[in-house]
Amino acid sequence: MLKKAIFQGFCKTDLSQEEWKRIAAICEQTHTVSPDKVSDLVKDADGLFVKLGTKIDRRFIDSAPRLKVIGMFGTGYGRIDAAYARERNIAVFNVADYATRSVAEFVFAALLNDARHLPRALTQSAAGDYSDASFMGTQLFGKSIGIIGLGSIGACVAKMAADGFGMNVLYWSQKRKKDQETKHIRYAEINTVLSNSDYVSLHLALAPGTETFMSAARIDMLRAGTVLINTAPMELLDLKAVEVRLAKNHLSLILDHSDEMPAADLQRLSRYTNCTIYPPIAYTTREASTRKQSIFVDNIVAAATGREIPNRVN
Amino acid sequence: MLKKAIFQGFCKTDLSQEEWKRIAAICEQTHTVSPDKVSDLVKDADGLFVKLGTKIDRRFIDSAPRLKVIGMFGTGYGRIDAAYARERNIAVFNVADYATRSVAEFVFAALLNDARHLPRALTQSAAGDYSDASFMGTQLFGKSIGIIGLGSIGACVAKMAADGFGMNVLYWSQKRKKDQETKHIRYAEINTVLSNSDYVSLHLALAPGTETFMSAARIDMLRAGTVLINTAPMELLDLKAVEVRLAKNHLSLILDHSDEMPAADLQRLSRYTNCTIYPPIAYTTREASTRKQSIFVDNIVAAATGREIPNRVN
Repeated sequence: MLKKAIFQGFCKTDLSQEEWKRIAAICEQTHTVSPDKVSDLVKDADGLFVKLGTKIDRRFIDSAPRLKVIGMFGTGYGRIDAAYARERNIAVFNVADYATRSVAEFVFAALLNDARHLPRALTQSAAGDYSDASFMGTQLFGKSIGIIGLGSIGACVAKMAADGFGMNVLYWSQKRKKDQETKHIRYAEINTVLSNSDYVSLHLALAPGTETFMSAARIDMLRAGTVLINTAPMELLDLKAVEVRLAKNHLSLILDHSDEMPAADLQRLSRYTNCTIYPPIAYTTREASTRKQSIFVDNIVAAATGREIPNRVN
Repeated sequence: MLKKAIFQGFCKTDLSQEEWKRIAAICEQTHTVSPDKVSDLVKDADGLFVKLGTKIDRRFIDSAPRLKVIGMFGTGYGRIDAAYARERNIAVFNVADYATRSVAEFVFAALLNDARHLPRALTQSAAGDYSDASFMGTQLFGKSIGIIGLGSIGACVAKMAADGFGMNVLYWSQKRKKDQETKHIRYAEINTVLSNSDYVSLHLALAPGTETFMSAARIDMLRAGTVLINTAPMELLDLKAVEVRLAKNHLSLILDHSDEMPAADLQRLSRYTNCTIYPPIAYTTREASTRKQSIFVDNIVAAATGREIPNRVN
């Protein structure tokens, strides 16, 4: 059993009634609280469950001496100091691979939306103007796409690009994945990938080595006209360098991770017509949501009942 | 040489300067005219070149006794009485297969736009609201898609659906295409296809046998929640029957062929929130446009120089 489980930033609808019942069955107390009210409650909590974007640093961990488990309701746990948690014997888990297809499909949804000017098309037709005169889209077929990070999502995007859209894929990944390579999915050095792609899609996790992975030098390698899409954490990007190239109209930028960006950055970026910012919906499908909830609660149940936590990351 | 070539409804930008030069080299006179001014000019024309949506019936053909060739700047020539033209020794050609990939990619662009609520997402973020709270998309992966008509575009959509998106494809076509069938692309009777698909995409040409192919009886076979997408001529649809099911919220309808629809139909359909009408941009990409122009002018040159017209259809 968990004595006191804090669900920071959760609302009741984040989990189905059924999943809340499974939680209630193995927790004496559960609290869904807004982030600003956590500090008081967490003092004697043994379970802390957080959403993407939450920072759990050493100081925070020290303020919760009874903590046994920290669960991330999402994949990226780069904002949790998992190494320090381990020192303190606190298990950290995340929810991985629940939305691989959803994110990969979003990448193509967003690329096609951009390539075919669908937002403008719908605005125009909603105003009663059904002329095609001002439209000239671009095919994805035959274009090159650079995939940075060939984890499960990157690999799925690569396969869809090659097998579905007839694109030529170059990838770079921290570990080369020869088993994923085909005639149209080829490995290359990072600089080669960046400087030879019509589209570049980022799929790195946030980790000490990946922060501003897309540094000014690497952003500058993208050739003029490149469409850069980021469904991974925003911290991968040197935003200032991106902005310089946006201002020169050298790049198109498509983002969905706006929830983690400072408001000032968001406002500034949203002024560029070649920057499209979605709410963070790449992961958000019914199918992914069902899977995410059940994996998440499976892990909480494991933690509460003293079994091995399947998705433990530290 | 053609003595007098009429380009009905064309504007100068429909063809590149280079293509106009190729035309000028083999035509004594060329006239780009609006449809309402054709009747006078066509009397002594030997070449008539028209755009999609133009009706060329028996009476019109009779009004142009010197006509030798009618060229359609597009694929669908169902509105041209090609059989009667043949009786009169007038060759009819179209431009086929120039936009296969463009249309197929548009189908997925539009399906994904709908499945992930991207128009609403962008409207929301443009207003400064980056919350994901109200979004719950749908994956295409694992869903079933019915393809009606397995010509080049239908076959391309089928392959992209199966190989790229992991969808299960059922198709019906006037001629069964066993060479296109795979584990995930299977043939079925039309009623089976219509009643077993999450998505239905129409890819029939307009011909005497296909007008209102999607009759009231067939529309009624679509199960509740089906997304019907039509990038083929609107005449395939019994619009009244579609409207009945739209009004009951039994269907989602996605269209791009609005240019051929009467304004009253358009206005009525556009009132339904489950009906998305694009300007006719499925065919409109740079790649397709270049190819379309060069195939079109190749055929004009062939006609003018007395060679066999490659794309003759009658």
